[in-house]
Amino acid sequence: MFTLYGDKVSGNCLKVKWVADHLGLAYRWVDVDVVAGEAKSPDYLARFPMGQVPALELADGRRLAQSNAMMLYLAAGTTLVPAEPFAHAQMLQWLFWEQYSHEPAIAVRRFQKFYLGKPDEAIDPALMTKGRAALDLMEGHLSGHDWFVGDGLTCADVALVAYTRVAHEGGFDLVEWPAVRGWVGRVEQALAIR
Amino acid sequence: MFTLYGDKVSGNCLKVKWVADHLGLAYRWVDVDVVAGEAKSPDYLARFPMGQVPALELADGRRLAQSNAMMLYLAAGTTLVPAEPFAHAQMLQWLFWEQYSHEPAIAVRRFQKFYLGKPDEAIDPALMTKGRAALDLMEGHLSGHDWFVGDGLTCADVALVAYTRVAHEGGFDLVEWPAVRGWVGRVEQALAIR
Repeated sequence: MFTLYGDKVSGNCLKVKWVADHLGLAYRWVDVDVVAGEAKSPDYLARFPMGQVPALELADGRRLAQSNAMMLYLAAGTTLVPAEPFAHAQMLQWLFWEQYSHEPAIAVRRFQKFYLGKPDEAIDPALMTKGRAALDLMEGHLSGHDWFVGDGLTCADVALVAYTRVAHEGGFDLVEWPAVRGWVGRVEQALAIR
Repeated sequence: MFTLYGDKVSGNCLKVKWVADHLGLAYRWVDVDVVAGEAKSPDYLARFPMGQVPALELADGRRLAQSNAMMLYLAAGTTLVPAEPFAHAQMLQWLFWEQYSHEPAIAVRRFQKFYLGKPDEAIDPALMTKGRAALDLMEGHLSGHDWFVGDGLTCADVALVAYTRVAHEGGFDLVEWPAVRGWVGRVEQALAIR
């Protein structure tokens, strides 16, 4: 039994929860209210110095942060983490790209627009440009493939779907990216989250 | 024999080169001038749609992007990539943190200050704040540990040292972070890059 610290409005937290649920793992969930600053409280920082959610605590007290590292740890040895070395590397490629080029645009714009209620003109226009470029790249890949790596669901799909499926809350209408929209449906079905 | 596409002013490219050299791997290096826009040329984008360096091409034509994914692929099965599951997860934790919370502050500020020659007042002050926070977090860890994971060099150290060792070019004087400075020396010695 392990403990997941997270906020259910955060796609990064949901990634890890979905993987745990999909694999039927038993865990305790502890809500951490990010908007209220609970991830920056002295108590939380003492345990998780990165000051972010999600975070994971094992029964023996060992702790881990970073959503993608947590997913890979929980899913090791399952089909969600390809064992073949090049497929494994492709999965990692998409996970690093997600955290560098997708989340900082699409999730950040969604947070500002949907949760902070900022009007469009108060949001850095670079977020829309970068977010659209990320969706274009995904569309290119998904026009020729059903999944990001190989022929089934992997952690790459789980990571990328987290904020893509709520991209409209950030002002990105997936009607413009039909292959992405089709893939979101496949991933939601595979994870039983629709 | 594989091919590495990269720009030697980019720490992300050097990470992969250092790992290949450290492991004695044979490869061909192709210079890509990022400042001149060569990573966004139609020819490069056709092969590497993410439009970034470094990138890797295997002898059979398979391609991979994202520096940290490339390092892990090349170093799989060596001591640079811990096999024990939790240590492996800790390494991944630091690699994802590096790409999300360290590189976008320290590498970006260095690029703007050192390569674009921007005066300090023209650089987003958030980059200094975020970069200092990243160095503070590293200092906290390194005050109690010689390496980021376990008791020897791993890909986590290689990734984090790439821009930390040139942080002064971005306006971060490592005199303020003595444990980080000591660790930089250890990693440089282990990689024989000093």
